[in-house]
Amino acid sequence: MPLAPLDRTRLLEALALAEGSIGLTDPNPRVGCVIGHDDGRVLGRGATQRAGQAHAEVMALRDAAAAGHDTRGATAWVTLEPCAHHGRTPPCCDALVAAGIARVVVAVGDPFPQVAGAGITRLRAAGVQVELGDEDIAAAARELNIGFFSRVERGRPWLRMKIAASLDGRTALPNGASQWITGEAARTDGHAWRRRAGCVLTGIGTVLDDDPRLDVRRVPTVLQPMRAVMDSGLRLPAGARVLAPPGRCLVFHAAPASPAAAALTAAGAELHARPGTDGRVDAPAVLADLAALGVNELHVEAGARLNGALLAAGLVDELLVYTAPLLLGEGRPMAALGPFETLAQGHRYGFVDATPVGEDLRLRLRRAAM
Amino acid sequence: MPLAPLDRTRLLEALALAEGSIGLTDPNPRVGCVIGHDDGRVLGRGATQRAGQAHAEVMALRDAAAAGHDTRGATAWVTLEPCAHHGRTPPCCDALVAAGIARVVVAVGDPFPQVAGAGITRLRAAGVQVELGDEDIAAAARELNIGFFSRVERGRPWLRMKIAASLDGRTALPNGASQWITGEAARTDGHAWRRRAGCVLTGIGTVLDDDPRLDVRRVPTVLQPMRAVMDSGLRLPAGARVLAPPGRCLVFHAAPASPAAAALTAAGAELHARPGTDGRVDAPAVLADLAALGVNELHVEAGARLNGALLAAGLVDELLVYTAPLLLGEGRPMAALGPFETLAQGHRYGFVDATPVGEDLRLRLRRAAM
Repeated sequence: MPLAPLDRTRLLEALALAEGSIGLTDPNPRVGCVIGHDDGRVLGRGATQRAGQAHAEVMALRDAAAAGHDTRGATAWVTLEPCAHHGRTPPCCDALVAAGIARVVVAVGDPFPQVAGAGITRLRAAGVQVELGDEDIAAAARELNIGFFSRVERGRPWLRMKIAASLDGRTALPNGASQWITGEAARTDGHAWRRRAGCVLTGIGTVLDDDPRLDVRRVPTVLQPMRAVMDSGLRLPAGARVLAPPGRCLVFHAAPASPAAAALTAAGAELHARPGTDGRVDAPAVLADLAALGVNELHVEAGARLNGALLAAGLVDELLVYTAPLLLGEGRPMAALGPFETLAQGHRYGFVDATPVGEDLRLRLRRAAM
Repeated sequence: MPLAPLDRTRLLEALALAEGSIGLTDPNPRVGCVIGHDDGRVLGRGATQRAGQAHAEVMALRDAAAAGHDTRGATAWVTLEPCAHHGRTPPCCDALVAAGIARVVVAVGDPFPQVAGAGITRLRAAGVQVELGDEDIAAAARELNIGFFSRVERGRPWLRMKIAASLDGRTALPNGASQWITGEAARTDGHAWRRRAGCVLTGIGTVLDDDPRLDVRRVPTVLQPMRAVMDSGLRLPAGARVLAPPGRCLVFHAAPASPAAAALTAAGAELHARPGTDGRVDAPAVLADLAALGVNELHVEAGARLNGALLAAGLVDELLVYTAPLLLGEGRPMAALGPFETLAQGHRYGFVDATPVGEDLRLRLRRAAM
């Protein structure tokens, strides 16, 4: 059944509130909540805060209370099914019931096993009328937390691979020069995508070539994503800049214990041995580790070798490609793949959108809708 | 001064008429004309026909006459300055004056030396009021005949290089397989761009690899563009499919007279020796030849070697790139360039637009506005 116009409007408002909490709530989902009456009055608004702090529903109830509004008999519009379990905070369902909320409209159900359906059941048992969003709203709500859904449903983060390249697909000249193929606007936009992520992953080749920090600098953020390096031979220098920013830096390797390992640990790196059968790092194991650490969206900025390995392993959900209007001829490829014998062996995605960003073009592609 | 609303409307109508004559008028420009009164009545419409046949103004006057309308005192809206000289047809200026046209609104002046300004002068001398389009309309009128302006003003065609490639810039697998990286819709769209051209140019490598026909098949057209092959060593087989379609096929080479040359001539090829200083074909000389043959837009569909040579020579005005949502890894590059030492040596263009075409994306880039 399609949503009533007011319900759609309020859920879209709640989604906008939730978007405002990108870079804040990880590993929790981004959630927004509007509380009001069905005659159009709005009593309170809220969005989920940092992990361990209040969820959207509680924030909206507090907002209403602070304004002196009585929420009894009111409706709550929430972008994700309210939680029914005691985590680091008490269940939101109970808070809504206690506040006398009569009706809850939920954009999409929670995939988290301890919530899935239980929130709705708990509300209904308390006499609250519960309605669910239609397909459009549910898709938008799911999209906003695509990484959270991926982690809970698939046990791995949503992997978004960022590539900056020339029109002819070169990420660097043969001598390694790559600063800067794309312009300022594209680089800033890239940091906004980093901010969405719970972790930014690269390969040891990129660290040795470019010594990146991989933190979020060009846009404001509350949380910094973790950094992670795939470094089978544990070649990471203890002075690498990726170790410098505050927050965790994970190093996934396939090497035996060594003095280098001790030096890295002393420099603040968290070493994880994840050897694959081929002597390289076991990528699926790394993704499982990152999911266990609460990483919803994994942002990959790597070179051809790691890009190729992740693509070949079928682990890349989304491509975020910044294309510069530049032809370079010889240079480094986006991904080490092939040589293929037939075009059918290529890795096929689908364009999601193409957006001008400064002088460059940002292309997004996905393999399949989740 | 901005155009009056009716003048703008009528010129836009005339531009739409002119667009309908793409694939028909070469080497003449595409021109449209509307005749009517300033109170809003339209008396006749016309567009330029095949070379040697009537121009837009005469077609519109005939249309008005066929409907029994009196054109005395009427206005003519024309997308290009009416011609003032006797070419294969009498001057359009005279036809407008003879029909009693009182006012002519011209979208943009003609660059052709025998017309430039002369048409307007001739009309004014006959007592006709003449007005010119504003910047927007003039730009649109120029754009529609960008090749005609290029040929007349620069002595060379507008060179549009078409490339179909994977997202990572591969035009073929290492084994040469390239059919099909892009989909049906992109290939049909590519033929619509071929149709705009007076000539489709390729290199001998592409002929030997793919044996293309290079004619317009996937969209209807009245005229077929000429075909041309850059073939320094005259390796073109007499049975090549590029020689098969009706119409001229030019072969530009740098080879001495030989039995192969005689066989090609017998097979219908028109051989032109244009040796450059490096033993290859002299590309600027070829462009001058094509301009002399009346080629306005030159459509290049070639491999990395010819693409690279044309780019390096600074002869590429526009890039028309069909990007497939596909990663191939190893394969053939778009253009043989470099190796460059610095990014500043790359060939920088600017994006004009990005348009989904079927599953693929069509990107257009230009080096500079003409």
